Parts: sequence; structure tokens; C-alpha cells
Amino acid sequence: MNKNVNISIIGTGNVSWHLGHALVDAGYAINQVIGRNEVNTQSYAKAFNADPVYSVNDLDPSVDVVFICVSDDQVQQVEEDIPAFDGQIAHTSGSMPLHPKRENCNVFYPLQSFSKDVAVSFSSIPILLEGHSVEAVSLLREIAQNLSNNVYEVSTDQREKLHVAAVFANNFTNHLFEQAYNICVENNIPFDILHPLIQETAFKAIHANPADSQTGPASRNDQTVIEKHLSLITDKNQRTLYRVITDSILANNETKL
Amino acid sequence: MNKNVNISIIGTGNVSWHLGHALVDAGYAINQVIGRNEVNTQSYAKAFNADPVYSVNDLDPSVDVVFICVSDDQVQQVEEDIPAFDGQIAHTSGSMPLHPKRENCNVFYPLQSFSKDVAVSFSSIPILLEGHSVEAVSLLREIAQNLSNNVYEVSTDQREKLHVAAVFANNFTNHLFEQAYNICVENNIPFDILHPLIQETAFKAIHANPADSQTGPASRNDQTVIEKHLSLITDKNQRTLYRVITDSILANNETKL
Repeated sequence: MNKNVNISIIGTGNVSWHLGHALVDAGYAINQVIGRNEVNTQSYAKAFNADPVYSVNDLDPSVDVVFICVSDDQVQQVEEDIPAFDGQIAHTSGSMPLHPKRENCNVFYPLQSFSKDVAVSFSSIPILLEGHSVEAVSLLREIAQNLSNNVYEVSTDQREKLHVAAVFANNFTNHLFEQAYNICVENNIPFDILHPLIQETAFKAIHANPADSQTGPASRNDQTVIEKHLSLITDKNQRTLYRVITDSILANNETKL
Repeated sequence: MNKNVNISIIGTGNVSWHLGHALVDAGYAINQVIGRNEVNTQSYAKAFNADPVYSVNDLDPSVDVVFICVSDDQVQQVEEDIPAFDGQIAHTSGSMPLHPKRENCNVFYPLQSFSKDVAVSFSSIPILLEGHSVEAVSLLREIAQNLSNNVYEVSTDQREKLHVAAVFANNFTNHLFEQAYNICVENNIPFDILHPLIQETAFKAIHANPADSQTGPASRNDQTVIEKHLSLITDKNQRTLYRVITDSILANNETKL
């Protein structure tokens, strides 16, 4: 394990938490955790055996890589606020571009939905890299490959599109699982009944083109069941979701004809 | 294994295919496969070592249970067309009620999305029962428990609501996986990159309340990313889906405040 690479982390959110742990587990030394929130910064620094620092101006300039793990809208500002130093910077955001001007800015995007309380195994998480120089990408690839078996180099354009796809595949599907959960709870039905179906849905999406696994009233244009379902749904938002997604599936059917 | 229960199946679709195989695997004898399509009926009958029959009027009246595996809109007609006999009838539809009048009509609903080409393990599939009599439910429960470890008795109301929930949890999420797939393909990105995320999404939905796992631009009301994503989406349907589901997540956030 290459412990000669010295790493600092900016930010104290979910990505920082999971990335920091993965780096420590892989044998990397974390030099500093840099955050504005004193309590969080101290707690993260303690967890990673690092020094807590409260401003990017106090960055130790001897560090090899600084990971920026802040919310998307703060990424560029943080990139520009970091004082000049000889190491590399990498932000961890799916939707932010490669900084156009600062040459040592790069991207190291672990594509996963992180919740602080849920442990993740980094080894299967795809890590998407982008950099200004061959040297920077090579250094980041080495780190990434020590954390994960799925390391890709993708352009800003591809990463941005992938982030949109990830919103569909994760955020939006989770929101639909939440609707299913609520319908069960409201009708005294154990949500466990739907667990095998949820597992099967994910299994099929991974093992076949999802278009080939589409079933249900909309895919067979069964207007009787669609109307019945709409009459059973009392929540306004749920009815809108049902209508719009059904229409989208129906439109798909037509395209396929 | 109770091989004294004699079973026939009406219909030659996906449910018939998988239920028939599960029954045979559990040691049940299939007496007749009844269908209008001669080729399918013969092929299914052969697979189940049963006799092919082309009209419900030719039902062998000595049979103990007849499973109706036809499309939802044909269920009630088939229930009424079956000649009087001493056994039990069970339809396998999530959205159709218990027949209000015919006393030997019941419900045996395996809650799963069946595709003919994808093998399923029936043992984890929930089977939802409803019947007019204790005796009928008891007979169906015995069969169900020989196929699955998850057998429930639920009312028509609950089953109908559960079917709506299943549409959200399976049909609709699969449609969103399809959007993610299409975005990847259009941008020369291997869909494999999203597999771990899809698995994690399902894993979290099963191990926690989905509301607690919601992440993404809408859940943190990040209008910059939302607007950016909308500008990146070229497909009209995809944009509508993105907008409506985002609005629904935003409305949820407000309720939680």
C-alpha cells in the first residue's frame, strides 16, 4: 500500500466520512481534515487520526492530494480559495465540471448514494476520474484502484450525463419506493411483502436491458386497471406521479410499435 | 408433499408458466392446461405433463383446484364461464376482487413481476390469499406454503392497494432504470457503472424506511443542479419525468419541515 501519498480532506459531509474511512482502511495517512464546523471537523479528524483545521488557508502545503468533499455549489469557490501548493486537488462531485483554469484541479467522483449511518463497501463503488494532466490522473488512479475495482476515466460531459442517469436510477426510484412504503403503511400491510419484488426489480435491471423487463398495466395498455388504480390513490402527488409515469410508459410502447 | 391435490391451470401466460413449474417442482400433479391458443396450450401441457384442453367447458370436474392465470380483464368472465364442479377456483390477479357471488371463487396472488425467460425462485415470492370459506383458504394455504415461505391472507381492499404499491415499486422504478440505461447508451457510457448504485438503492429500500435514504439534488433543494440537469436532458418524456418527480420530492421536503 502506498503510504507515501499524503492526503487531506476538505468538508465534513457523507462523502468525506465514507471516503476518509476507505482511505484509512486502505492504509493512507490523512494529514488534515479541513472544515468550518468545529465539532464535525474535530470528530472527523479524530476518526481519521488527522489534524483538524478550520480554513483552507491553513492547508499543509506538503500534502500530495486534497479531496474536496463539499456540496456542489461550493466546489468551485473552494477550488479557488485553496492557496497555491505543489500537490493535486480533486473534487468528488458528479455534477461539477473540471475546473477550467486551475491546472492542479481534478475530479475523483465515487458514484454512490452515501448515507452517514449506512456502511458501504468501497470496493464495488465506481470511481470516475478526470484530470488536467497525465501525472495527476495517474496519481488519482493509483489511489482509486486501492479503494475500488471499478475505476473509469470519463469526460466532464459524460460524468454530467451519468449524474443525471444516477438521479433516475437512485434518487427517483427511491422516491417511488417511498410511495410504495407509504401505501403499505396506510393500509396496514407489512412493507416486507414488497421486498422480494424490489430485489427482483434491481436484479433484472442489472442482468437485462430494463426495457425488456417492463411489465404492468401501462406496458400492456390496460386502461381498466390504470383507471382503477387512479381511483384508489388518495394522495395528490402520488396520483400525479402515477399519471405521468404511466403516460411515459404508454408513449414508450408506441415508439416500440 | 400432498400429491392428492389435483390441479388444473387456465391460461398460457407468464404467471401460468411460472406457477405451473413451481407446482410441478413441489410434487403436484397438473391435470389439465386450458387455453384458447392451441400451440401454447399444447406446449404448456407438455411442460407440465398435463392434458391440453381448449375450453373451460371441458374442465375435468374431478379436479380439486383450478388456477385462473389470464389477463385481469378476462378474470371475471372466466370465473363465470367455468361449469359447476365441487372443487375450488382461484384467480392469480393482484387487481381483481374476490368474485362477489360465486362461492368457490378465491384469490391466490403471487406478488412478483414474471418474465417468461427469467427463472424465478418461488420460495421467496409472497403469495396473497383470499377466499369465501375457511376450507378454501386452508386448502390454498397448504398449496401456497409448499411453494413459498411468505404466505399472507389479505382482503380485496388491501390486495388492490398492494398492487398499486407494487406498480410504484416495480413497474415505475423499472421505467426509470430504462431512462438511466438510455442516457448511458446515448453517451457511450457502460450501464455497468450504475449497477452498484442500483443494487444499493434496492438494499437500502429493504433495510430502512426509503424516506430516510432519500438523497440527491431535489432532496437538498439544489436548484442549480436541477436546472442544469433539465438543460442536459434532450428527451421530452425524460424531462417531464425529471420535473414531476423532482417536484414531488420537493413537496415531500416541505411536508417534513
